[in-house]
Amino acid sequence: MERRRRGRILHHQLLPLWRTASLLSPCAWPGKPLIAYSHNTWKLDSGLPMHSESGYWRPKHDGSVEVVIAQSTGLAEVLKGTHIAEDKVIKLQSQVVANASKLREISRVHEMVNGELHYVVQMATNLTALQPHLKAVLKKLP
Amino acid sequence: MERRRRGRILHHQLLPLWRTASLLSPCAWPGKPLIAYSHNTWKLDSGLPMHSESGYWRPKHDGSVEVVIAQSTGLAEVLKGTHIAEDKVIKLQSQVVANASKLREISRVHEMVNGELHYVVQMATNLTALQPHLKAVLKKLP
Repeated sequence: MERRRRGRILHHQLLPLWRTASLLSPCAWPGKPLIAYSHNTWKLDSGLPMHSESGYWRPKHDGSVEVVIAQSTGLAEVLKGTHIAEDKVIKLQSQVVANASKLREISRVHEMVNGELHYVVQMATNLTALQPHLKAVLKKLP
Repeated sequence: MERRRRGRILHHQLLPLWRTASLLSPCAWPGKPLIAYSHNTWKLDSGLPMHSESGYWRPKHDGSVEVVIAQSTGLAEVLKGTHIAEDKVIKLQSQVVANASKLREISRVHEMVNGELHYVVQMATNLTALQPHLKAVLKKLP
């Protein structure tokens, strides 16, 4: 069962003037409590691909979630957090950020608001505390 | 440009009696020196999915290759190695194995032999040195 979402990036820390689009493609893994995940962004004007990432969401029965993500920049992330069903929100905090020279910490919050998926990534570096890196809103594709 | 390969697992350290099939789907990323990668295995008899992994291969101009992989088990890998063009072989050694309780080290060798992709994964744990975990042969799909 594939469910794809597409949307606009509202804020990007490094690329404020670039217009990009996102495609989030979670694909439930039949027979396993596992969601295969890929997320791609590209420039709206040229269609050129930008960032890409893929991995797996591993929901647990106790409401906790473990996520492992490989990024096209070469970075690997392991995040842990919680799914709060009544608030339709998943909050994740990095446990591991590997193969990153400056990046130390990543948080990701996914929240359903009026049927739209709001998506915020915060990052901390060697020099800065957690701050918004990316905000996006994604609508369900038919 | 997608190029998919499918084949049989010849040897598996933990599941010697299970027959599984592999699908390797590298997908070149236009405009970037980057190959998006996904690899899925499933049981041949029931069709149930087994292991899955996805990530990115990042070839460099000097013949070195960096690979980042997220595994469906929750494990993240960063590997580095070399592409030896005349021998049609890529040899990779893990730099990072994250979110694994016992696994310490992974090596991967991909070699083209008579048009078939031979694929060997070796693993080392807290208790054992590198030893073959998986061997597979994959043929190009039309």
